[in-house]
Amino acid sequence: MTLGAPIHTLAAALNAGTTTSEALTKEAFARIDDPDGEGKRVYREVFREAALAEARAADARRAAGIVPSVLSGLPISIKDLFDVAGKVTLAGSVARDGEPAATADAPIVARLRAAGAVIMGRTTMTEFAFSGIGINPHTDTPRNPWDRATGRIPGGSSAGAAVSVTDGMAAAAIGTDTGGSVRIPAGLCGLAGIKPTARRVPLDGAFPLSGSQDSIGPLAPTIACCRAVDQIMAGEDVSDITPMPLAGLRLAVPQHFVLDDLDDHVSAAFSRALDRLSKAGAAIIDLSLPELLEIPKISAAGGLVAPEANAIYRELMARERARCDPRVATRIDGGALMSAADYIDTLAARTDLCTRVSAITRAYDAVVMPTTAIMAPPLAPLETDDDLFHTQNMLMLRNTNVGNFLDRCAATVPCHKPGEAPVGFMMMGETMGDDRLVSVASTVESVLRA
Amino acid sequence: MTLGAPIHTLAAALNAGTTTSEALTKEAFARIDDPDGEGKRVYREVFREAALAEARAADARRAAGIVPSVLSGLPISIKDLFDVAGKVTLAGSVARDGEPAATADAPIVARLRAAGAVIMGRTTMTEFAFSGIGINPHTDTPRNPWDRATGRIPGGSSAGAAVSVTDGMAAAAIGTDTGGSVRIPAGLCGLAGIKPTARRVPLDGAFPLSGSQDSIGPLAPTIACCRAVDQIMAGEDVSDITPMPLAGLRLAVPQHFVLDDLDDHVSAAFSRALDRLSKAGAAIIDLSLPELLEIPKISAAGGLVAPEANAIYRELMARERARCDPRVATRIDGGALMSAADYIDTLAARTDLCTRVSAITRAYDAVVMPTTAIMAPPLAPLETDDDLFHTQNMLMLRNTNVGNFLDRCAATVPCHKPGEAPVGFMMMGETMGDDRLVSVASTVESVLRA
Repeated sequence: MTLGAPIHTLAAALNAGTTTSEALTKEAFARIDDPDGEGKRVYREVFREAALAEARAADARRAAGIVPSVLSGLPISIKDLFDVAGKVTLAGSVARDGEPAATADAPIVARLRAAGAVIMGRTTMTEFAFSGIGINPHTDTPRNPWDRATGRIPGGSSAGAAVSVTDGMAAAAIGTDTGGSVRIPAGLCGLAGIKPTARRVPLDGAFPLSGSQDSIGPLAPTIACCRAVDQIMAGEDVSDITPMPLAGLRLAVPQHFVLDDLDDHVSAAFSRALDRLSKAGAAIIDLSLPELLEIPKISAAGGLVAPEANAIYRELMARERARCDPRVATRIDGGALMSAADYIDTLAARTDLCTRVSAITRAYDAVVMPTTAIMAPPLAPLETDDDLFHTQNMLMLRNTNVGNFLDRCAATVPCHKPGEAPVGFMMMGETMGDDRLVSVASTVESVLRA
Repeated sequence: MTLGAPIHTLAAALNAGTTTSEALTKEAFARIDDPDGEGKRVYREVFREAALAEARAADARRAAGIVPSVLSGLPISIKDLFDVAGKVTLAGSVARDGEPAATADAPIVARLRAAGAVIMGRTTMTEFAFSGIGINPHTDTPRNPWDRATGRIPGGSSAGAAVSVTDGMAAAAIGTDTGGSVRIPAGLCGLAGIKPTARRVPLDGAFPLSGSQDSIGPLAPTIACCRAVDQIMAGEDVSDITPMPLAGLRLAVPQHFVLDDLDDHVSAAFSRALDRLSKAGAAIIDLSLPELLEIPKISAAGGLVAPEANAIYRELMARERARCDPRVATRIDGGALMSAADYIDTLAARTDLCTRVSAITRAYDAVVMPTTAIMAPPLAPLETDDDLFHTQNMLMLRNTNVGNFLDRCAATVPCHKPGEAPVGFMMMGETMGDDRLVSVASTVESVLRA
C-alpha cells in the first residue's frame, strides 16, 4: 500500500497492519527527497522530526486500539499560509521573513492533529495566494504531473498542495480557495477538491487574502477523501456519504459565461461527461442564467478581493514591495484605487445577486461546469509573458470564482480519459448546502471514473 | 384617559371601555391640528383616513373580544423614512419627491398594523437621518417640550418622533438609531427609548443611512412601553419584564471618553442618579475602559457611517445636491474621500474592539453613562452657526454612538428633576443581550422616577 491510494484504503491497510504510519511517512520523505522528483518545488518546509513523532505516536495509539479518525496516521500537507506554532507564516513570500512566529497552530491544523493526522510540512503557493496559475518566482513552481516532459503549470494558488498528492508526498493536501485556488490545481492535476461554504471551516490562522471570499478546502484522490478532511476541519463528525440516486439527478448547465472560450480538449471532455451522466440516468438541464454575466459587471469597480488584499498587504508592500512578485504586487496595488463607496456598493450588489441566483439554482441538485476553461498550459511562456499570464490567469479563475463570489460550496472531480490532460468537472451547491453537494459529487464521480 | 399615559394604562382604559381607539385617535388629531401646537413641525404627513379606519376597526374587533396586542387601537407615529405602501418615502428630504412609491409597508410597519396599532403618520427628522441635533430646514424643527419659550432643539434625528409623544400626538413613536437618533431625542425630551441590537429588528423598508450602524427603536413614556413596541417590531411575543433585583445590581461607569465635557446640569443629574441607585442597593463601579478612546481613532479615516451614506446617497447628491440641507450634503460628500482599504480596516478594527470591550463589560449588568453630554441647546444659534452646529452635533452623538459602533443594545430613561431640563440616563447592554438590558432598565427607571 502506497501513498496515492484513497484515504479509506490507506486507513484500512493501517488497521490491517499491512503498513504503518511511520512507513507511509518515510515513503513520503523518500518521494520528497528524490533528486529527480518535484519535492523541492512542492514543499517549502518539511517538518521531518515532528511528522515522524506524530507518525510513531499514531502507530503506538493504534496498537492500543486508539484511532481518532480515518486520517489517523496519514501524512497530510498544508499550504504555506497556515500558522504552525513557533514558525513564521510566510504565505509564499520572502518578504514576511521578519514577521513574528505564530504562537499557536491554526484551528484547522490543530483539528487535523487532534484527528491523528501527520502534518508533513508546508507546500508552495502563489505568493499571497493571489493567482490561479500557480507560478512562484521565489520558491519555483512544481510541474503538473501530466506531461512533465513539457513542463506545465500545476494551477494555483495551492500549487504544491496538488503535486504533494499526485506525487505521493502526502495522502491529502490542505489548500485555500479565494477564487479557485483549491479547485484549479485539483482540476488541472487530476484530483478531487472541495471548496466548502466559507463559514463552515474556521479561517483563523490562515493568512488572509480576502475576508469576503477566502475558504479552506482539501485536495485528494477522491471526493470521499476530501469530505473526511473537510468534516474534520469543520469540526464535524466524519460521516459516510449517502450518494444521490442517479435516476432523475438534476444537473443544471448554465448557458452563459462559464461555457465561453473553452479550449477544444476541455469542451470535449465536459461534453463527454455530460453524455455519460445523461446515459446513466441524470437529467442534464441547459439553464439560462444570464445573471452570471453580472459578476464581471459588479466587479468592474475593483471587486472584493483586490481591495481586501490591499487592506491586508499595503503596509508590507510599502516596506517590501521590491522583494515581492511584481505580478502579485501589481494586483494588490490595484485594490488601492477603489473607493469605500464602490466597495460598499459591490458588497450590496453581491448580496442581491446571491439571492437572485439562489432562487433559480435551488431547483437543481447542482450547477455544473468545467472547473477551468482551459487545460494546463506550458509553464515557460507564462513565466516571461505578462500579457499571456494575465489573460490565462483571468480565464483560469473565471468559473471557479463564481462559487466564491456567490458564497457557495463547490467540488471538482476528474472527467478526462486516462493519459489525457486532466480536466475537472465542477459541481456548485447552494450556500451551506455542502452535505447535499458531496452526495451529488460522489454519485457523479462514480459515473465519471467508471 | 389621554395620550401621554403609558401604553399599558391606555390599553387598560380601552379594555375597561372608558375610552375608545377612535377617541384617542381623534384626540391626537386635535393636538396635531392645534394652531398653537407643534403639529405641523412634528408630522410631515398625517394618514387621517387610514388611521381613523384602523381605529374604528380596532374598536370593532375589541367589542368582539379580539385584541391582538397591548398596542391594539393605540396611535403610533413612524419616522419619515419608513415605507408605507403607495407612498413615496421621503426620508426628511425634498429631493426624493420624484422617486417611485413604496410597493409595500416596511416589515416593522406591517407588524405594528398586525398588532392592531393605529399608524398615525410620518414624523419629521433630520434629512436622511444624518445628525443628532434634529434641525431640518425643509420641514422646520419641532421645539423641545421643555422651555418652549426659548425654543430648544428636540434632538435628532428622530425629532418629530419625540415630540409626537410628549405632545400627545401618539402613544409611542418609531425612530431609527444609527448613532443615537432614538436615544438623543428621547433623552432631551424626557422620554424612554430603546436602541435594540440592530439585527433583532428587520431594517427592510427603512430608508438606510448606514448598513453597519442602523437600527430601529421606539420612543415612549416608559421602558415597558418601549419594550412592547420593540418586541412587536422584532416579531417576538410581548412578554412581561422581569425587573433585575436592585441588591447587587452591577452598573459600570466608564471613566474614559463618555464623562468628558459634560455640562454642569447633565453632570449633576447623572451624579444624583448614581447616588440614588447606590442608596437603593445597586453597586456602582468606576470602570477603567480606555478602549472607548479607540473609537475616534478607528474612525479617523472616515468611520463607517459617512462612506456607507455616500454609497447610498451619492447618485441622488449628483442630481439633487442643491435641494438638500448643505450640512447633510457636506457630511455625505465627506464619505467619498475614504478608500476601500481604509473602510475594510475600519470594519476589522471595529470587530476586534467589539470583542475586547465585550470581554470586559460582560461582567456587569449594564454599562451606564449620560445619554448626551449636554442638555438641549437653543435652536436659533444652531440654525445659523455651522461651527457651533458641528461641535454640538459631534458632542450630542458621542455617547450614544458607542452602542452603535460596538453593535450593542442600549436604553435611556429620564433622570432629571421635574421641571428641569430633561437628562437621559443611558444603559448599554451586550450584543443580543436585549432581554437582560430591559430588565436592568426597568429596575433603574423605577428608582429614578420614584
